[in-house]
Amino acid sequence: MGQLAEREVERRRLQLSPHPVTILIIDRLVGLLEVIMVDVWVAGVGLTSFGKHEGRSSAELFTEAAHYAFRDAGRVSADVDEVIFGNVLGSEIESQVNMAPKVAGLLGLTGKPVTRVENACATSGVALRLGYMLIKSGMARTVLVGGGERVRTVPGDELQRLFAHAMDQQYEATAGVTFPAVFALSTRAYMDKYGATEKDFAHVSVKNHENGAKNPIAQLRKPVTLQEVLDSPMVADPVKLLDCCPFTDGGSAVVLTAEKPSDGRRAVRIAGSGQGTDGFLFAEHADHTWLRAVEMAAKMAYADAQLDASALDFAEVHDCVTINEILCLEALGIFERGKAAFATVDGDTLLTGRFPVNPSGGLKSKGHPVAATGTAQIAELVMQFRGECGERQITSKPLNAAVAACVGGTGAVSAVHVLTAA
Amino acid sequence: MGQLAEREVERRRLQLSPHPVTILIIDRLVGLLEVIMVDVWVAGVGLTSFGKHEGRSSAELFTEAAHYAFRDAGRVSADVDEVIFGNVLGSEIESQVNMAPKVAGLLGLTGKPVTRVENACATSGVALRLGYMLIKSGMARTVLVGGGERVRTVPGDELQRLFAHAMDQQYEATAGVTFPAVFALSTRAYMDKYGATEKDFAHVSVKNHENGAKNPIAQLRKPVTLQEVLDSPMVADPVKLLDCCPFTDGGSAVVLTAEKPSDGRRAVRIAGSGQGTDGFLFAEHADHTWLRAVEMAAKMAYADAQLDASALDFAEVHDCVTINEILCLEALGIFERGKAAFATVDGDTLLTGRFPVNPSGGLKSKGHPVAATGTAQIAELVMQFRGECGERQITSKPLNAAVAACVGGTGAVSAVHVLTAA
Repeated sequence: MGQLAEREVERRRLQLSPHPVTILIIDRLVGLLEVIMVDVWVAGVGLTSFGKHEGRSSAELFTEAAHYAFRDAGRVSADVDEVIFGNVLGSEIESQVNMAPKVAGLLGLTGKPVTRVENACATSGVALRLGYMLIKSGMARTVLVGGGERVRTVPGDELQRLFAHAMDQQYEATAGVTFPAVFALSTRAYMDKYGATEKDFAHVSVKNHENGAKNPIAQLRKPVTLQEVLDSPMVADPVKLLDCCPFTDGGSAVVLTAEKPSDGRRAVRIAGSGQGTDGFLFAEHADHTWLRAVEMAAKMAYADAQLDASALDFAEVHDCVTINEILCLEALGIFERGKAAFATVDGDTLLTGRFPVNPSGGLKSKGHPVAATGTAQIAELVMQFRGECGERQITSKPLNAAVAACVGGTGAVSAVHVLTAA
Repeated sequence: MGQLAEREVERRRLQLSPHPVTILIIDRLVGLLEVIMVDVWVAGVGLTSFGKHEGRSSAELFTEAAHYAFRDAGRVSADVDEVIFGNVLGSEIESQVNMAPKVAGLLGLTGKPVTRVENACATSGVALRLGYMLIKSGMARTVLVGGGERVRTVPGDELQRLFAHAMDQQYEATAGVTFPAVFALSTRAYMDKYGATEKDFAHVSVKNHENGAKNPIAQLRKPVTLQEVLDSPMVADPVKLLDCCPFTDGGSAVVLTAEKPSDGRRAVRIAGSGQGTDGFLFAEHADHTWLRAVEMAAKMAYADAQLDASALDFAEVHDCVTINEILCLEALGIFERGKAAFATVDGDTLLTGRFPVNPSGGLKSKGHPVAATGTAQIAELVMQFRGECGERQITSKPLNAAVAACVGGTGAVSAVHVLTAA
């Protein structure tokens, strides 16, 4: 809208040659608009390796990723006005709340505002959204956003219990419900409703492992076969081990700026931001084959970006369990209801397909460091736009617009962002 | 700046009677500016009682306060575009992260964006700052901010251990450092540097209890004498029990809007917002008699509000331990370095003094429900501006501008807000 208004002013100025005082007034107003109606650009992205990081704190993992993002942006931390940083389980696992000043210190930013946010597995998607708004508000010109999480010092069964803190503790978790169990119910509901099979979901896993095998930072860098997925141990019928993402330590960071980068690479813009919620209890959701929080967030992001799903070229979505890649794609409007599983079987979402999904390997293969996942998706979109993805680069089509969707809890929260490249 | 630009446009329009097309252009630009360069107004505030809330969750305490804030604003929850909500210790005490969708559900706002933030005891000050920024960005018109905390189901000694999660866990907390111990060191440093005595600090406690005794929601609604403070049990020499705030359950909420309220009461505006950090380790701070995070946040808030401390009429500051009221007042620039303790003894900060401080009773008497404290300070400022404070109403001077400062960790984070009343 800012650019439109500016162009109109420019056109009319040339046509009408108005009074000099008018020019003065208009110049001043356009100047104000330029400051305030800013676009938000990605100056740089950074990721740690995903996997196990012994003896590192969540704050350190985020700051390591931040240093990569500064290097990528050709900037230094001192350029940053403000930081929005996510962490989910540090209070339980590291006995540490108030990580914000710790992050400030590690980044050499002591004095400046640093904020911790937490919205379960959607945390750094929400951090990105707040950073986007900080720049839109005119209150900051350069913002660092991202997340860090260290979980793997805790044994797996204890981790399942801690992860369940992100679902309702009054009724659901205390009844023995776990995340794989919840998504097993969604999987079964989808199978019953649309006639999909366990093998159809296995295609998501095979595809994402194929992509992740080509991603240097991925945790599970190896392909798996359909048969291996189907033969893997049952976790919660019909969800098997190879339908599920691993536990992961890692960090991710994105440097946002109000200035369009001019470093010779394609300039990537955060074109739209959205965030949504659904019932905190899984039992409250009206339809277990539908991610309403993602739908709400997507509607908001598309409206903000002034486009719809048909304009998108590829996506990173929240495949913590294979069913959720399918449900995200439908809630995002990329595939119709009940169609995404079959489109996946048809190869539409392969790296070479008509709509590539999770070129990074997704949570399934790349890994899922809880609070770092949202901005890790953004890093992949940016690197794909710039053609920096090596073996996993999407080459079958031009890449001009993409979407990232992360989901937290039992589908209770989501952040969705649309990115475009000039 | 938006209002300035508008006034100038209006003045020049009248002077010059420009070409109709010019008027069209200017109207359009002013329209855009009106949408984007918004002021942020307080539509309503709400507080639960502060004290012990058996069987209530942090999310419930925040939403109870939110309902009072909606009633105060003459609005309903459906008017809200977005919620920024704070909680600090829910993951440890209620085994609950991902409280945002729970809050959405309790407020009847499922679908809409809700975000949890955590910056220790400065949490809801930071929530307010993000809500302010949301409205400034033009992405929301009405935002609910605040916090809720329930801690008193946990015994006191265990709570001391949990509260210490807000200080560094690698070096300081593990060395046996506690918050009273840290602020005892500050107190001693101030005494040594400026010649203040234990009795001088006791005046802070006496004053705040006197104010809190008149506050219906306060936890410790009783006056204390200087002698009672001095005779109270030593917690960490020279900090005594009656120098310290209590453990508190409670919630607070503020409804922010882009529209100036026209309900017949004085319209209160968030005129400036700031946030700062200092070293995460107390040992890193250059000067233990100086709260650098508050200084940084105050500078930012004053610049944003385009005023300085001399324009302020009263304040709510973070008196978790008596020394911190003194240090806040100096870092805010309300009193010179080394003068605030003596000004307190002289009665300058009494309800009837030349610069009333903590008319609510402060953390000391009103109570300190960690994540709810920042917006509870805001609620008091707003009620004072409107003349709604009954027995504790400041009547000695007109109230046009005020400041709230909250502090987290060992002085490691702070949020400062300037409010003005029209």
